[in-house]
Amino acid sequence: MQVVNTVQDLKKWVQSTTQSGRSIGLVPTMGFLHEGHMALVEAAKAENDVVAMSIFVNPAQFGPNEDFDRYPRDFERDSMLAEKAGVDIIFAPSVKEMYPHDSQITMSAGMLANVLCGKSRPGHFDGVLKVVTKLFHLVQPNAAYFGQKDAQQLAIIESLVRDFNFSLKIRRVETVREQDGLAKSSRNVYLSNAERREAPELYRSLQRGVKDAREGQDPIPEMIRLIESETSGTIDYIELLSYPDLQQEPKEQAILALAVQFQKARLIDNIIFNLKEN
Amino acid sequence: MQVVNTVQDLKKWVQSTTQSGRSIGLVPTMGFLHEGHMALVEAAKAENDVVAMSIFVNPAQFGPNEDFDRYPRDFERDSMLAEKAGVDIIFAPSVKEMYPHDSQITMSAGMLANVLCGKSRPGHFDGVLKVVTKLFHLVQPNAAYFGQKDAQQLAIIESLVRDFNFSLKIRRVETVREQDGLAKSSRNVYLSNAERREAPELYRSLQRGVKDAREGQDPIPEMIRLIESETSGTIDYIELLSYPDLQQEPKEQAILALAVQFQKARLIDNIIFNLKEN
Repeated sequence: MQVVNTVQDLKKWVQSTTQSGRSIGLVPTMGFLHEGHMALVEAAKAENDVVAMSIFVNPAQFGPNEDFDRYPRDFERDSMLAEKAGVDIIFAPSVKEMYPHDSQITMSAGMLANVLCGKSRPGHFDGVLKVVTKLFHLVQPNAAYFGQKDAQQLAIIESLVRDFNFSLKIRRVETVREQDGLAKSSRNVYLSNAERREAPELYRSLQRGVKDAREGQDPIPEMIRLIESETSGTIDYIELLSYPDLQQEPKEQAILALAVQFQKARLIDNIIFNLKEN
Repeated sequence: MQVVNTVQDLKKWVQSTTQSGRSIGLVPTMGFLHEGHMALVEAAKAENDVVAMSIFVNPAQFGPNEDFDRYPRDFERDSMLAEKAGVDIIFAPSVKEMYPHDSQITMSAGMLANVLCGKSRPGHFDGVLKVVTKLFHLVQPNAAYFGQKDAQQLAIIESLVRDFNFSLKIRRVETVREQDGLAKSSRNVYLSNAERREAPELYRSLQRGVKDAREGQDPIPEMIRLIESETSGTIDYIELLSYPDLQQEPKEQAILALAVQFQKARLIDNIIFNLKEN
């Protein structure tokens, strides 16, 4: 496995790879890898000749009061895990390498950012759009792999690729969970022991909510009750929207999603489902 | 020469062209071709194996009170001229083909749009950024060719390519002029005979301004005097900025640019020059 830190070295690899006709699967990450990322690598390996993983904690998608500096990083462990999983190249640029100039040109997710996590993270998805566009241009993948856990990110990136005619495919990979149902996340390490025991209630409440929604009930009051009685976290949002266009009052394909703030970790989870199926 | 109207047909051509290792030069236009466009084609032919020209009057870059409906179109004449000039393929999509969905995601030129034409055309360059990004993704050119006449557009597209890591080169092609100095433009057809006789004063005043600026004088008052006394047009702006970053108080590379509104045509022109050279 190669590790490259500069745009120039990455471009050399991309050029020789595409010239030899090999297809590239891209797994964009912020590092601190867990099984969720490994599921993305696995999906990318199954569909492509080679797999590129980017590891870049993107400052443009963190707000001024968010955890950019504190976001967990462990490159040595990451590169070991990536190599074991069969990644062919890691692109791990510095912030300076990705943003060498003051840049005036911005992208905006518009109304797609006015729901779910976007409401409490102004500018977050604009930063995601910028870095993802840059990575797509740099790596020139045939397909890129994203986890369903970040469902709003996935929906926005699918819109990006469609509306701006990128020539790659976006693959949605199911959320990987702990045995007790908690969605894997780099931020889970910040849970206290007590919070860690409570956290599976998030997924249980989502499952209950899906059942209620399919029976024609508003699922949200009961979910609020469950989370408030069974956890010490504070609900940031619980929303039921259409998927992937993220509009109110879904008819068929829907997403039920939540974010809950614990002391040092804000956890998100969701289920994407069809309201008409059981 | 091929003419394709759909994204699907264009993609087939792009795929077979790139697979055979041929380099693509892209000349993006809004049609109603004149010698300025032909100079772009010539530059593209000199540097690439094949030349693609897009002809698309992009509604996203016209304001609600601008001349989208009235913008001159003559596809038959355009395709004759393009074929004669050696264009290999024309991509002439419908508006529906380029914008099949309501799109939430937007691009913004930020402060680069707060000077020159951007001031009086809010949103114009955002629309340019969107269509240019789409065309770059669709055509996958090795280089794209733009006229210096639209200098602000050129500066913004150069920033776009740099800041978003597009893998193509942007080539600046000098403004083509009539014998009397008037910059060629699709909008020149809207000048009355009297206005057409006055219009070369725009370039003459720019030349005078460059001379004055190099001698350390503020060139603008004399340019205003010249244009107001020699033409019936109304000055929209005359600005002296750094190039390509379009900041006030240039030190070396500079652009002196103007826009003048005549009865049915708004004309623009500029000179890019070094303040320290004569």
